[in-house]
Amino acid sequence: MEPAINVLIAQFKTFAGKDGSSNTLSKEEFQSLVASQLTTLVKNASDPGVIDQLMSSLDQNNDGELTFLEFWQLIGTVASKHGGLSQ
Amino acid sequence: MEPAINVLIAQFKTFAGKDGSSNTLSKEEFQSLVASQLTTLVKNASDPGVIDQLMSSLDQNNDGELTFLEFWQLIGTVASKHGGLSQ
Repeated sequence: MEPAINVLIAQFKTFAGKDGSSNTLSKEEFQSLVASQLTTLVKNASDPGVIDQLMSSLDQNNDGELTFLEFWQLIGTVASKHGGLSQ
Repeated sequence: MEPAINVLIAQFKTFAGKDGSSNTLSKEEFQSLVASQLTTLVKNASDPGVIDQLMSSLDQNNDGELTFLEFWQLIGTVASKHGGLSQ
């Protein structure tokens, strides 16, 4: 599993490093990541309304930036549905 | 990212399917997964005390089985530390 985990960390960092804080995703970075990397898992990944809604549902401290763990939560939720593992 | 996510889902299912409920990890399945798959990310992965402690910290409803999302939380926490992304 570790090679796959390392891929996810590296790709998060690539997108998070594009502007501002290099350890968090701004809305623009999040949109860019979802639209290019999560096209199967997130329906309508290129719809700004979908991105807005996802971003606000994940950004628990509401600062406009997603931490790795906030982002990780999204992947887990969509992956569990995709994999038929949600409760 | 989706290929890496699919690897993690598939490997979770492989371990979860070994006994009992095929969608959750028993303690034995969790131990087997951690000791074989997370040797870098989890220190002392073969120590039963470490496994006991991790399992009880993750098993939020305390039923002795880890769901995918409970397990996902663990990976996110250790990955964020490993990747220098923890707050």
